[in-house]
Amino acid sequence: MYQINQERLMRYIFDLAKVGEIEGGGCCRLALTDADKQGRDLVVQWMHDLHLDVEIDAIGNVFATRKGRLDLPPVMTGSHIDTVRTGGKYDGNLGVLAGLEVIATLNDHNIETDHPITVAFFTNEEGARFAPDMMGSLVFQGGLDLEDALNTVGIDGSTVKDNLNKIGYAGPRSVGNHPVHAFMELHVEQGPVLEQAQKTIGVVTGVQGIYWTEFTVTGVSNHAGTTPMHLRHDAGAASAAIIHFAQSLPERLGLGQLATTGMVQYSPNLINVIPNKVTFTVDLRNVDAAVLKQASELLFSYTNEIASKHGVEITHRNLADFQPVNFNQEIINLVESFADSHSFSHMHLPSGAGHDAQILAAMCPSGMIFVPSVKGLSHNVAEFTSAEDIAAGANILINSLVHLATA
Amino acid sequence: MYQINQERLMRYIFDLAKVGEIEGGGCCRLALTDADKQGRDLVVQWMHDLHLDVEIDAIGNVFATRKGRLDLPPVMTGSHIDTVRTGGKYDGNLGVLAGLEVIATLNDHNIETDHPITVAFFTNEEGARFAPDMMGSLVFQGGLDLEDALNTVGIDGSTVKDNLNKIGYAGPRSVGNHPVHAFMELHVEQGPVLEQAQKTIGVVTGVQGIYWTEFTVTGVSNHAGTTPMHLRHDAGAASAAIIHFAQSLPERLGLGQLATTGMVQYSPNLINVIPNKVTFTVDLRNVDAAVLKQASELLFSYTNEIASKHGVEITHRNLADFQPVNFNQEIINLVESFADSHSFSHMHLPSGAGHDAQILAAMCPSGMIFVPSVKGLSHNVAEFTSAEDIAAGANILINSLVHLATA
Repeated sequence: MYQINQERLMRYIFDLAKVGEIEGGGCCRLALTDADKQGRDLVVQWMHDLHLDVEIDAIGNVFATRKGRLDLPPVMTGSHIDTVRTGGKYDGNLGVLAGLEVIATLNDHNIETDHPITVAFFTNEEGARFAPDMMGSLVFQGGLDLEDALNTVGIDGSTVKDNLNKIGYAGPRSVGNHPVHAFMELHVEQGPVLEQAQKTIGVVTGVQGIYWTEFTVTGVSNHAGTTPMHLRHDAGAASAAIIHFAQSLPERLGLGQLATTGMVQYSPNLINVIPNKVTFTVDLRNVDAAVLKQASELLFSYTNEIASKHGVEITHRNLADFQPVNFNQEIINLVESFADSHSFSHMHLPSGAGHDAQILAAMCPSGMIFVPSVKGLSHNVAEFTSAEDIAAGANILINSLVHLATA
Repeated sequence: MYQINQERLMRYIFDLAKVGEIEGGGCCRLALTDADKQGRDLVVQWMHDLHLDVEIDAIGNVFATRKGRLDLPPVMTGSHIDTVRTGGKYDGNLGVLAGLEVIATLNDHNIETDHPITVAFFTNEEGARFAPDMMGSLVFQGGLDLEDALNTVGIDGSTVKDNLNKIGYAGPRSVGNHPVHAFMELHVEQGPVLEQAQKTIGVVTGVQGIYWTEFTVTGVSNHAGTTPMHLRHDAGAASAAIIHFAQSLPERLGLGQLATTGMVQYSPNLINVIPNKVTFTVDLRNVDAAVLKQASELLFSYTNEIASKHGVEITHRNLADFQPVNFNQEIINLVESFADSHSFSHMHLPSGAGHDAQILAAMCPSGMIFVPSVKGLSHNVAEFTSAEDIAAGANILINSLVHLATA
């Protein structure tokens, strides 16, 4: 079995983590910012150093291909290198850099494959600056129109298009009709399940469905001391009721249901003024599409109740709607069997987070490998996975890719 | 009976409202900003035009005195001219400018009084930039130490002292030992009670107690998709529960209890990241000191429950704590009897908002006159009171002041 170079892979990871470094050991490389550009430039340089054929498409996805013996669609691996504002070193980056390490190992040993192998990183996987997340892979796969993606306005008011042009990553490659033989993504779990079960490898069975809604509640600003409770139109009271209700959905629907409000904005945001406008998000996830649908329906029905109870107007817009995805059974089996061959402890689990692999799953056989996240921390500067676990995951990856690349 | 000049009073109001004018007809003159300085300069100019003796004290309160026949403590009237960020034309300003109009009318008719009459405006009544509110009158009355007030850090990180110096309103007059014979304040109701009862004059019996708390909830940031609900330390979920609970206090304790959360700040404030820190305020008010205490105790006890339920740390600091105040019975009777003499419809009511008069009540007989606020709107650019109602209030004021200024 092939064996990657753990030291070289960790060097890739730590070198990329220096770009956009923030206090506490984390990274801030929001999609298409100057920090993202610097990260991209570094990874593209490494791709060239590995003698790969680098192509950039119109949404800024980068594909670096190592030739195969035969003229066949590539086996692809990769992930993303953008981060949330308070991100860690591993989320996304590991999948891209493990891909480069696989190439470097194949180069070291002059190993040829039938299918070409492509290492990709996709634009704006996080969605922390532009919604929806997984934008680049969605456009690549055809699930999101290129023009719609380019015209997306971010949290700072500028568009994807402007930022792609600004950082020089609006590439010449078209976004459609690029067949992929199979796709695999190595990723940190970003949750506590593997660590708690003391397993090294997560055999990922699929990805939770994700449903993001932004609510805007409009009431009437008024003096906090002189307005009797029954005459108020308090956008804040209505919002707190809805956020609190959203938090109760997992108890009602079972622990597989997740609910998070991560973003809240009050206006005018003064102690003694009843808020006239509150904007907030609700992130709902479930592996079960029917229960996820039920969760959003319960939420909207409660929202209507609250709107009439508080005499406020509540509008909402959908920011993301991804159905649960099941990964390819052969790839699931492949990951499991290589984990056995390496004597790595392993378990099956679904992914709680969204990943580019779930988008690729709509166009080719796809799968994922998870390695443990210490304390389950992710989207956090303290995100950590041991070098040994990372190497374990990368060794499953190289063997799986070579297997898939064999005609 | 004396009669003020309605046109001149409305001109004062509209001219001052041009300073710091904002869209929709409102004003933004946060305490001790450049806009506040411009407003102060204009009012001080008017005070000089009325031949008043103008003094500024060390906290920036401004006192303009018309001599009395006798060497006695002054009868004082006034209010404030700072506003909230989205304030109206009348809140505070009316009380100061009606005082000037009273002086102008006395000057017109060469009316002498036994006691001097002082028109005052007090620094930072709103508390929208520096806590606590009613800061200037508190320092004047001795309820707040001058140095503590001067060292207060505002929402933009600068101190009261620096801003007083910057705008040139750190005056030479000392803040203690200035006896006042009586204090009266004309103010818009800022609530819907007079309008709904179709009364012109509110005979104000006292002021609600006010209890402001700022809570800071600290949890752990983590990925919204991969962190099982039972392993979260979600500062947002804990905050929403508390804000929602605070809203339930009026139902539990009776409608005299008010509860408002006007300010909320999430961190890192991203859709798919569990918030690690949320700061929010709770404004509790009641005319009944015992019930107000019970409300805050229920809130703190629930907060402890939520802290342990969600595994988060919750700290709080008190931003304001004013006991309910009863106004002087003779002044209450005076307002009522002049309302009768003028055939103005009237009713007794407590004030829902805090006012400088409640602070002065601790040092001299004090009282207030309310005029109706259309739709109860205040702390809102659409705040409105008709010129006729304003004149009615000012006519009660001039007759009450002359009565009180008679030895």
